[in-house]
Amino acid sequence: MSKLVVKKFGGTSVGDVTRIRKAALLVASHIRKTGDRVAVVVSAMSGETNRLIALAKSCVPNPNPRELDMMVSTGEQVTIALMAMALEDLGVKAKSFTAQQARISTDRNFTKAQIKEIDSSNIKRAIEEGIVPVVAGFQGIDEDGDITTLGRGGSDITAVAVAAALKADACYIYTDVRGVFSTDPRVCPSARLIAQVSHEEMLEMASLGAKVLHPRSVYFAMAYNIPLAVLSTFDPEDGITWIVREEELMEKPIVTGVTYRTDEAKITIQKLPADPASLSQVFKALAEANIFIDMITQTGFDGRKTDISFTVLDEESARTLSIVNALVPTLRAEGASCDRNIAKVSVVGVGMKYHTGVASRAFEALAKEGIEIQMISTSEIKISVLVPRKCSLSRLLLLHETFVTEAQPSVEAVA
Amino acid sequence: MSKLVVKKFGGTSVGDVTRIRKAALLVASHIRKTGDRVAVVVSAMSGETNRLIALAKSCVPNPNPRELDMMVSTGEQVTIALMAMALEDLGVKAKSFTAQQARISTDRNFTKAQIKEIDSSNIKRAIEEGIVPVVAGFQGIDEDGDITTLGRGGSDITAVAVAAALKADACYIYTDVRGVFSTDPRVCPSARLIAQVSHEEMLEMASLGAKVLHPRSVYFAMAYNIPLAVLSTFDPEDGITWIVREEELMEKPIVTGVTYRTDEAKITIQKLPADPASLSQVFKALAEANIFIDMITQTGFDGRKTDISFTVLDEESARTLSIVNALVPTLRAEGASCDRNIAKVSVVGVGMKYHTGVASRAFEALAKEGIEIQMISTSEIKISVLVPRKCSLSRLLLLHETFVTEAQPSVEAVA
Repeated sequence: MSKLVVKKFGGTSVGDVTRIRKAALLVASHIRKTGDRVAVVVSAMSGETNRLIALAKSCVPNPNPRELDMMVSTGEQVTIALMAMALEDLGVKAKSFTAQQARISTDRNFTKAQIKEIDSSNIKRAIEEGIVPVVAGFQGIDEDGDITTLGRGGSDITAVAVAAALKADACYIYTDVRGVFSTDPRVCPSARLIAQVSHEEMLEMASLGAKVLHPRSVYFAMAYNIPLAVLSTFDPEDGITWIVREEELMEKPIVTGVTYRTDEAKITIQKLPADPASLSQVFKALAEANIFIDMITQTGFDGRKTDISFTVLDEESARTLSIVNALVPTLRAEGASCDRNIAKVSVVGVGMKYHTGVASRAFEALAKEGIEIQMISTSEIKISVLVPRKCSLSRLLLLHETFVTEAQPSVEAVA
Repeated sequence: MSKLVVKKFGGTSVGDVTRIRKAALLVASHIRKTGDRVAVVVSAMSGETNRLIALAKSCVPNPNPRELDMMVSTGEQVTIALMAMALEDLGVKAKSFTAQQARISTDRNFTKAQIKEIDSSNIKRAIEEGIVPVVAGFQGIDEDGDITTLGRGGSDITAVAVAAALKADACYIYTDVRGVFSTDPRVCPSARLIAQVSHEEMLEMASLGAKVLHPRSVYFAMAYNIPLAVLSTFDPEDGITWIVREEELMEKPIVTGVTYRTDEAKITIQKLPADPASLSQVFKALAEANIFIDMITQTGFDGRKTDISFTVLDEESARTLSIVNALVPTLRAEGASCDRNIAKVSVVGVGMKYHTGVASRAFEALAKEGIEIQMISTSEIKISVLVPRKCSLSRLLLLHETFVTEAQPSVEAVA
């Protein structure tokens, strides 16, 4: 039976006119082979958004955010037109839609707006008339009719939101990798393509550093139950990852992936009075400063005082330390310090819900290699450990060997 | 008393961010000096429209016109944002408006649309709130909500139409010349800046090759009685030309300007039967082929047959000749030929309405120099003669000497 699908092409997939023509050909072939109805969402050509931001900053030091969005949104407007032209040239009826024409409503947070609603009547009408709507990703319209942008990665969110509004059967995210891998294939040759992953796992993986999909697009797909696929524009036959509901997973591997990130720093407050008021004073001050806290641990409790460590984004670490240092006298703590030489390694898998022993095996594997574990945090489907950044990535990735490569049969679906 | 004025900056006036800042400074100074309320209209940065068209054509050989307009309209969208940023940076409250936001309605002729109406409520509200609206020139929205463009020179039309919708006191067109000259100052050093010119004269000058203003913008200014000024962004104090109603002219020189154009060709049909049916057959065929005819003359009438000559745009001459040649047998004419080696020189002046003898003085001046006159056409305020293109421009421009330099006191208003 003929389906309705959304296909989204990212910046590198539409990086020049040759690539745009190639992407258009993928859409045309899909339609000819399947008879499916297709809606397309595109990003700006790679580099274009940065070029426009640089142009604005060369004009004034602090561009007005409304005007910046007005300007930056032209990037996708060029791509939708080129994509529609390329489709027409292949004999596929197509029509481009700005966010305003596609009626994508957002809040008024310029440069980082969130989609509130899509009135899909315009794009639905096009589809009913046999026309492929080509929708500008990354942008919307606020209630004043002003153009907003969703922030980096926003085109994925547009694609899933359009798929949800159209009640599409699937949303395909075409990118420059073959899908989601069990770990970073650039540092770990044994990384394997994941055929299926649950939304929850993908969220853990996305937030933890697998930069394939924007977490909000995964939330949207989960909330509206849109099957979401990630595949390569350049080798679309050479792999695909489906992000599906947990109950639809064909198998539930204990560990699906191992991720790492090196963009955090650890702040420690020494000998803080061990009472709830002191703790809340620290984290309230940081929340007011809009500093996002990731892991938190408490160590060295002596009945009266304790050490508190937590991680923040590396780029926020200097600001965080100065806020904390200012509090030290009031709190009657001993002092505060910052360690930027850390990395976070996480093991993610929906099967952990049903299997015990993953944590102990992880700690054992790291201990065997003599890697010091500085902090630990866990969720139902994730274990994260903080280790010194100097530990080479390949050694950290022995967790990948332990859990993914050895434990599972190959899950390469297509290759 | 404080006024409401529209200021329009063309492509070279906003050619880079330095120039945009300079244009913004002109607006800010005007507001500070006069307390006037100002609306701004801008073109795309010079070269940008051509870059976008080239990008489209590198993607597909014949871009869909709707998609081409979608794409090309981003040029002005970038400039309005930069101009609004630059004004804000100078402490002037400003807000950019796309054609859609400024509610500029056009017909559906993509790439050459005509403005039908402007609902100025949005920009009026901004002005009432003390905000300078910065409106995208050159573009509009058709009744389907599709983005259209007005064709080259369209930003002037937008500016005058916005001025008309706002019932503005004046519309200033900032460009890269100091105003309208009595002839081309690049070829005629004695060309003088015209302080005042009537709409009718300006229309004759604009259509005949003085490329300063788009004729339709002059029509709009005339129809809505908007005083229109042309001046330089780079030397705004160094000259200005006002285009006003004839009755408002402070003086009515016999000849205001001398213009020339070399982009036409002359087609001649030899020995056409001299009856209205034959003539109408020729011009009907050309009208159906969308070929615009300029001058027409009939010579060598012998009672039965006659030669007919007319001029068309040089770029249409080959197509015109082949249409005419195809008709020659049916018409029982002797043949047809094309002469591309022609130039048209025109003498324009509202004073001709009240003074005789301009034509004879013009012919006499040309005859004295031995320049052959091939065709003549006249209107109430214009005399055009067709001469061989090889006659150097400077010799043709002796008409300028005859009528403008010698006959009039200097009309340099500001300099």
